[in-house]
Amino acid sequence: MSEIKELRAYFEDIIRLNYIQAVLGWDQEVNMQNYKSLEGRSKQVSLIEKLIHKKVTSEKVGKLIKKAEKLSNLNEIESAMLREIKREYDLATKLPEELVTEIAEMSILAAKDWREARSKKDFSIFQKMLEKSVDLQKEKARRLDTHPDMYSTLIDLYEPGATYNWIANVFNPIKPKLIDFVKKLNSSSNKPDDSILRKHYDPNKQFELSFEIIKNLNYDLGYGRQDRSTHPFTSSLASMDTRITTRTTENYLNECIFGTIHECGHALYEMGIKKELHDTILCEGTSMGIHESQSRMWENFVGRSKEFWRYWYPTFQKYFPEILKDYPIEEFYRAINIVQPSFIRVNADEVTYGLHVILRFEIEKDLIEDKIQVNELPELWNSKFEELLGIIPPDDALGVLQDIHWSMGAIGYFPTYFLGNLYGAQIYNDALKKYPSLPEDYKNGEFSNLLNYLREKVHQHGKIYRAHELIQKITGEKLNPKYFEEYIEKKFLPIYGF
Amino acid sequence: MSEIKELRAYFEDIIRLNYIQAVLGWDQEVNMQNYKSLEGRSKQVSLIEKLIHKKVTSEKVGKLIKKAEKLSNLNEIESAMLREIKREYDLATKLPEELVTEIAEMSILAAKDWREARSKKDFSIFQKMLEKSVDLQKEKARRLDTHPDMYSTLIDLYEPGATYNWIANVFNPIKPKLIDFVKKLNSSSNKPDDSILRKHYDPNKQFELSFEIIKNLNYDLGYGRQDRSTHPFTSSLASMDTRITTRTTENYLNECIFGTIHECGHALYEMGIKKELHDTILCEGTSMGIHESQSRMWENFVGRSKEFWRYWYPTFQKYFPEILKDYPIEEFYRAINIVQPSFIRVNADEVTYGLHVILRFEIEKDLIEDKIQVNELPELWNSKFEELLGIIPPDDALGVLQDIHWSMGAIGYFPTYFLGNLYGAQIYNDALKKYPSLPEDYKNGEFSNLLNYLREKVHQHGKIYRAHELIQKITGEKLNPKYFEEYIEKKFLPIYGF
Repeated sequence: MSEIKELRAYFEDIIRLNYIQAVLGWDQEVNMQNYKSLEGRSKQVSLIEKLIHKKVTSEKVGKLIKKAEKLSNLNEIESAMLREIKREYDLATKLPEELVTEIAEMSILAAKDWREARSKKDFSIFQKMLEKSVDLQKEKARRLDTHPDMYSTLIDLYEPGATYNWIANVFNPIKPKLIDFVKKLNSSSNKPDDSILRKHYDPNKQFELSFEIIKNLNYDLGYGRQDRSTHPFTSSLASMDTRITTRTTENYLNECIFGTIHECGHALYEMGIKKELHDTILCEGTSMGIHESQSRMWENFVGRSKEFWRYWYPTFQKYFPEILKDYPIEEFYRAINIVQPSFIRVNADEVTYGLHVILRFEIEKDLIEDKIQVNELPELWNSKFEELLGIIPPDDALGVLQDIHWSMGAIGYFPTYFLGNLYGAQIYNDALKKYPSLPEDYKNGEFSNLLNYLREKVHQHGKIYRAHELIQKITGEKLNPKYFEEYIEKKFLPIYGF
Repeated sequence: MSEIKELRAYFEDIIRLNYIQAVLGWDQEVNMQNYKSLEGRSKQVSLIEKLIHKKVTSEKVGKLIKKAEKLSNLNEIESAMLREIKREYDLATKLPEELVTEIAEMSILAAKDWREARSKKDFSIFQKMLEKSVDLQKEKARRLDTHPDMYSTLIDLYEPGATYNWIANVFNPIKPKLIDFVKKLNSSSNKPDDSILRKHYDPNKQFELSFEIIKNLNYDLGYGRQDRSTHPFTSSLASMDTRITTRTTENYLNECIFGTIHECGHALYEMGIKKELHDTILCEGTSMGIHESQSRMWENFVGRSKEFWRYWYPTFQKYFPEILKDYPIEEFYRAINIVQPSFIRVNADEVTYGLHVILRFEIEKDLIEDKIQVNELPELWNSKFEELLGIIPPDDALGVLQDIHWSMGAIGYFPTYFLGNLYGAQIYNDALKKYPSLPEDYKNGEFSNLLNYLREKVHQHGKIYRAHELIQKITGEKLNPKYFEEYIEKKFLPIYGF
C-alpha cells in the first residue's frame, strides 16, 4: 500500500473521533442547556481531544508524510489529502497535549459562564473565564507561530491561507462605503416598516413552517434533523448525518425563518460533498468563509429575494392568517429587507452585517496583541459600535456578550462571516450569469437548479481546493468585493425608493 | 501511589469511553430512528469499542492487578473495584479485538433489520442478521468460557454470579404456580375490565402527565431528560446525566404511564449512587436483576398500588375528563391490574410477566446449545407461548420479533427481568416491615421515604456488592421467591373477588 493510502486509512479513526466529538457537542447544545452536569461532558470532550491529538501527532504520521511527499504520482485528491494531513500534523505537533485538553475542557465550562452572564446581562460573571480563554488562545498562537502576527495565526485556523493584512485590505475600503450606504438608505422618505415581523407568531407554527422550507430546499431528512437550540448551528455527526438547529422567537419571525435557511445552506454544502471524500480529511467545507458563502447565499440571495416569497408568501398567509392575510407581499418583501443599525449580529440585515463583523475583527486584533484588556471590552465594544453603527447597546447582552464564539476560544473566526458574504456574492453572480432563469425557478418553488450548480462548483469538492483556488476556478478571478457592492446597490436602492 | 489508586486513575478514561458509547447509543435510539445513515454511527461505536478493548487489555492493567492483589490493606470499595477491574480484564483479554468490534458494529446494523422485520411482520427479513448475531454470541461464550455451559457464561455477563442451573431452580417451581394462578384468577365471575385504558388518550397529554409523575417521584431533571423512543430505555451518559425515554400509544394508556415509571425506577438507582463512586467502575447498578428490581418496584409495587392512584387519579381525571371524569377509581385500579395472557412482554401484567421471561429463558438455552436453529424460532415461540399462556400470537411482530435484545446480541439478558421481580418483592417486603406507613405516604404524593430507604439500602452502593451479597445484607436471607408469591396472592385475589 502506498504511503498516501496508508495515511488515508490511518486517518479514518481520527475523522471518526472528530465526528464523535461532534455528537458530544450537538447533544450538549441541543439537550443539555439547563443541565447542572456539564462537568462530565467536558471530561469526555477533553478525552476525545486527547485521543485525537495523540493519534495525529504519532511518529508514524510524521514518517508517512515524509515518504508520501516524495511520491510523484499523486492525483489531485491525494495531493490535497496530503496537504491537509500535513497541516494537521504540523499544527498538532506544536501544541502540547495538556494545552489541547485544557482548551477543550475550558471551552465547555466557559460557555456555561457566558450563558449565565448573558442572561443576567452581567459581563463580570464571564470576565474571568474570558480572560482565561483569551490567554489560552494567545498561548496557542505563540506555539503555532505560523505567521509573523499572532492574529493571522489564529485566522488561518478557520480560513486557511488568509491573514490579517489580506482581510484588512478587503474590509478597509468597504467599511466607509457600508457606513455611507446605510446613511443614504435611511435618508429616504420611503423606508420599509418591519413591524409586521414583530407581531406574535406561534413558535410551534414557525418551527413547522421552517421545516417545510428546508424540505423544499432539498435538505435530506433521511440524513439529518432539525432541532432547537439557543444558538443555531449546523454540525456533521458523520459523513452522512448533517443536522441543523434553529430557534424560535415569539415576537420576531426572522430568527426562525432566516436562521433556518441559513443553517440549511451550511448543511447543503456538507451533504453535497462527493462520496469519494467521505470519511477522509477532505470531507468538510474548505474554509469557514466558503461555508458562510453558502449559508448566506441561501439565506439572503435566495431567501430574501422577491421570487422566493412569490412562492412562499401564500403559505405563510395560510399559517398566520390573522397577521398576514391582508398584508401585501410587496410590503412584506420590503419589511424583510429593512436596512437599519441594530444590536444583534445574527439578526442584522445584509448591509449592516459587515459592520458587525468588522467591529469584532478590529477588537480581536487588539485583544490578541495585548493592546486592550478583557475588562475594557464592554466599553470599547459600545464606543466602536457607535462609531460604526451610530447606536449604543443598552446592555452587554445586546453588546459584547451576544456571541458564544469567544467563550469557545474561537478567536479569528468572525472575519470569515463577512468574507462569506463577499465570496457568496461573487459565486452567485457567476451562477446567474450561467443560469439567468434561476430566480424564475424560485417563483415555482424550484430550488434544485441552484443547488445543482453549487454541488458541481462548490460542494462536491469538499476540502480539495483552498478558498482562493476555488473562487478562481469558479469565477476566473480572485475574491472581488465589487460583486457584493453591486448586489446591495442593485437590490436596496429600489427598496428604498431611490 | 498504590496500585489500586493507579488502576482507578487508569480506568477513568475507560469509564469515560463507556459514557461516550452511551451518548452515541442514546442519540441513535432517540434521534436516528428514521435514518438512512446508521453506517457512520456503527463505525463510531465500533471504534470506541476498540479503544476500550485496547485500554482494558493493556499489559499495564494485568501487571497492576497482580500487584494490587497482594495489597493487604484494601478497604471495601477498593476490594470491589479490584474485583470488577479484574473481571473486566479477564473477560476482555479472552476476546480478540476483531470479535469485539464486529459485535459492536453488527448490533447496530442488525437492529435496523429487526426494526424493518418487525414493522413488516416478516421474520425472514431479520433471520440472516439474527443468525449472525447468535453465532457471534456463541463464539463469544466459547472464548470467555467462564462456566461449564455456554448459556451460563452469557448470563453471567448481565447477572454476575448467576448460572443457568441456579436460575432454573428458581424459575421451575414458580412456573406451574403462575400458570395455575392465572387460570384461577380468570375463572372468577368478577374480572376487571380494562377497556377504559384503551380509549383515545392524546399522546402529548400522556407525555406531559408522565413528566409530572417523574418529577413527583424525585427524578432530578437537572441531571436528566425524558424523551421518546421506539423502545423505552434508561441510560447514563455520565455519572451525573441519567436519561430516560418513553413511548406513547394513542389507544393504550399503560405504555407511556407505566413505562415511564419503570424507567424512572432504573434512573433513580443510577442517580442515587454515592459520589465517592462516580467515574469509577463501581458507578453502575450491580446487576441487571437488581436494576430491574428497582424499575419494577416503582412500576408495580408503587405505580400500580391503590394508594398511588388515590393521589394521582384526580389529576388524570383533569387531564382526560371526557374519559375519566365519571369513572370510579376502584374500577380504574382494577383495570390497571388486570391479569390475562397477552402477547407483548413489556405490557404484560405482574403475574403473566414471569411466564414471558421463562419462555425466552428456555428458548435461549436451547438456541445457544444448538438444540434449535434460528429459522425454527417463530414456530417454536408460538407453540411454547400456547403452552405457557394459552394463546398464539397472530403474527411475529406480536411474537418472536417483539424484543430488540437478540438483535443487539443480548442473549442471557432476559432472565434478569424476572429475577428483578423476585428481588424487588423481597426488598419491598423489607421496606414495608421497617416502614409500614409507606403506602400512606403515597396517598399524599410523598415518595421520598421509599426513595431514601432504597438509596440507603441499594442505590448508594453501586457495584460494591454483588446481587447475592446485597440481598443477604438487606433482607438477611438469600433470594427467596416466596415474597413475590405472597405479594401476588395478597394483591390479586381481592381484585378478582376471591
